[in-house]
Amino acid sequence: MDEKVIIIGAGLCGALLALRLAQKGYSVIVYERRPDMRKETISAGRSINLALSDRGLKGLELVGIKDDVEALIIPMHGRMIHPLSGSSTFVNYSGRQGEWINSISRSGLNMLLLDRAEATGKVKFVFNVECQEVNFSKGELVLQDTINEKVETVNGDLIFGTDGANSAIRNAMLQASAKYRFDFSLKYLSTGYKELEIPSAINGGFRLEKNALHIWPRQGFMMIALPNLDGSFTVTLFLPFEGQHSFSKLTTQKEIMAFFADHFPSALSHMPDIFEDFSANPTSSLGTVKCYPWQINGSFLLMGDAAHAVVPFYGQGMNASFEDVVILDELMDRYNGDWKKILPEYQHIRKKDTDAIADLAVENEYEMRDATANPIFLLKRKIELHLEQNHPDYFSKYSMVTFREDLPYSVAMKKGRKQDAILMEYAGNLENIDEVDYAFLLDKLKKI
Amino acid sequence: MDEKVIIIGAGLCGALLALRLAQKGYSVIVYERRPDMRKETISAGRSINLALSDRGLKGLELVGIKDDVEALIIPMHGRMIHPLSGSSTFVNYSGRQGEWINSISRSGLNMLLLDRAEATGKVKFVFNVECQEVNFSKGELVLQDTINEKVETVNGDLIFGTDGANSAIRNAMLQASAKYRFDFSLKYLSTGYKELEIPSAINGGFRLEKNALHIWPRQGFMMIALPNLDGSFTVTLFLPFEGQHSFSKLTTQKEIMAFFADHFPSALSHMPDIFEDFSANPTSSLGTVKCYPWQINGSFLLMGDAAHAVVPFYGQGMNASFEDVVILDELMDRYNGDWKKILPEYQHIRKKDTDAIADLAVENEYEMRDATANPIFLLKRKIELHLEQNHPDYFSKYSMVTFREDLPYSVAMKKGRKQDAILMEYAGNLENIDEVDYAFLLDKLKKI
Repeated sequence: MDEKVIIIGAGLCGALLALRLAQKGYSVIVYERRPDMRKETISAGRSINLALSDRGLKGLELVGIKDDVEALIIPMHGRMIHPLSGSSTFVNYSGRQGEWINSISRSGLNMLLLDRAEATGKVKFVFNVECQEVNFSKGELVLQDTINEKVETVNGDLIFGTDGANSAIRNAMLQASAKYRFDFSLKYLSTGYKELEIPSAINGGFRLEKNALHIWPRQGFMMIALPNLDGSFTVTLFLPFEGQHSFSKLTTQKEIMAFFADHFPSALSHMPDIFEDFSANPTSSLGTVKCYPWQINGSFLLMGDAAHAVVPFYGQGMNASFEDVVILDELMDRYNGDWKKILPEYQHIRKKDTDAIADLAVENEYEMRDATANPIFLLKRKIELHLEQNHPDYFSKYSMVTFREDLPYSVAMKKGRKQDAILMEYAGNLENIDEVDYAFLLDKLKKI
Repeated sequence: MDEKVIIIGAGLCGALLALRLAQKGYSVIVYERRPDMRKETISAGRSINLALSDRGLKGLELVGIKDDVEALIIPMHGRMIHPLSGSSTFVNYSGRQGEWINSISRSGLNMLLLDRAEATGKVKFVFNVECQEVNFSKGELVLQDTINEKVETVNGDLIFGTDGANSAIRNAMLQASAKYRFDFSLKYLSTGYKELEIPSAINGGFRLEKNALHIWPRQGFMMIALPNLDGSFTVTLFLPFEGQHSFSKLTTQKEIMAFFADHFPSALSHMPDIFEDFSANPTSSLGTVKCYPWQINGSFLLMGDAAHAVVPFYGQGMNASFEDVVILDELMDRYNGDWKKILPEYQHIRKKDTDAIADLAVENEYEMRDATANPIFLLKRKIELHLEQNHPDYFSKYSMVTFREDLPYSVAMKKGRKQDAILMEYAGNLENIDEVDYAFLLDKLKKI
């Protein structure tokens, strides 16, 4: 534990990692490009609230703060589907008791992690510091204070890059790619997103069902909303950049208001500031980053979004990053703190699972946006919920990904895709939900 | 033709493009990071000689210099396969007359193109200038003179990035990727390479067959050699970085000499300076770059390796880059010089073909390195050569890729893969070449 440990990036992953390393006895210094979010209100650069589920909770349990997190979360037991006309449908995330996901404020959770890490007395956070250069063979970083512009060179035995989707450490690996044969891919969706808001009701209550993730699926685009503790909902519009219904067509107040009136009339009635929000908030793109290797020389390691940025449609970005810390923690024990063994083994066992959640997240855009408006899909979900209610050892793909932190993502993906193919085919040939032969189906599903 | 045209990169693609644009009436300024290769001996950073084939020749014909190129080339009619023991086998590239590939000096061809472009009076080359920043919305470049370090900002209506596999223009697109949804991937092989030499014989002649591409296939690694006009051969060792037979195992003189004596004894006898060459020359990695979009705002365009760097195993890197210029030239005519139409259409029609040659090149490592030592593959090649000799409308995958400049790479790949599957299966079930039922085979192949 004499290693000099440096972490670049004090976001969710970096703060959790710092806390865990401190608990294991390491002294850690964390450099963060942004100001201290506990002192200044800043944009975290990404969505305001996030879905926290079992893989993420396992990481928070590991560092002993699960109880404190309880006060920050709002359970979401299922999806509330809002069709264009007609009444809303609530679809549970699972047929079992006790399986739901949680809405949590990104900054609330991040600040809790910063506080707890600092409270160990072994973690020092240095804010407003940008990583400018990396020397991988020397274990050296050139850092610049973004306020006084002072430059310093620091050395570490162990340097973690948890600096997010635009990671400076990863960009340095890309610059040195020929030397380390660093594979990299970045792929964007044709869909963009914009955050909007449904404010709380005048009495401070929630204007929509509190304990749900709301979806307005519209074939090719959608809006979703997650609840906040203050009674508001953070709304996200996912819409193509180009095409018939697209951001490119929403440039005037008239176009914007007509678009919401046409496609989201029920939500619009709860969004008094829609035009101001739409105009003020950025339209952002959605990309998947994959790369490999994640480690260099047993002394540099990318974790979290820096190693595997995913699109948000499975609600697993933060959860996957926290699971990274859980897996690293297990390997620290297994290899007794021998980092030359831990880092290569970590990337070897972890890569296939973050590739899997990246692919699942891309696929799930279709499920949320289009399938939730498809009668066959809704029938299939009903069958699955029945299976989960009555056969507790049956887990849907969604349940395996979200609630089975004991199953690697890659296993959940492989098994889940096979289940989905069987169930969708079955549901497609069904006239009525009462006709389902559950014994036959279960038998088929067990053979996977 | 009033557009201000800037080209970044005066390598093979940039010089050919400049020449063609000048012939079409444009005034062009070309900035190149390296010194003028006509005045200083410099490393071009890549292989010394290259295989020039029909797609590349079409580009040279377009600008009217095919005859001048004749003086620079050495025809290679087929592969000379050198087994570990026993005699060499010569395998033709095609069963037809007049189909072969050509060895050409990279710098010789590049200098010819520079001279011809300059001779138009409409192209100005500026050497020792590095592109540091790009402003895509303004059409602006920040350039630095690498000798006096002076920085200047230049504007262009039309800016081409032909600055190779590590393109500065492409890197700037990657930095602005979220804005332009610029997809990028870089993937390395586990194989590296090192250039070596077989010098000319004492009398100035060739020590090996002059009109062949020599291959020493060794299951998992190989050496190849292409002839130079001075009687020497440029030799390339392709070897994994790690593993039993790998660069990592070749660190001492003893290890290096033993490796060549064990695996390449016949070649070693022609390589008197093997240890000096091996020690002095770099070990380089092999990567594939894919990206998209290639164009921004109808005013920036990536071409050549900047848009699609491929591994060298199909001998098509330069040929694909020259074909880029041919295709752009066709679109300039079709759209009457309307660049806002030309650039989007260019990337739309060209992308699938450079993806195809990228994938074919990766696959062909196996063919050159391992399959050429496989009796079934050699039998399959004999059958194919017979088909090509006797049925002039039959083209092998290799022939379609290499000699059919009228067929897009993507078509050659698709059809060629199907042919290969049929022929390999057929050859695998064959006892003797005399048993081949050519009528049956042709019928099967025609149904593809």
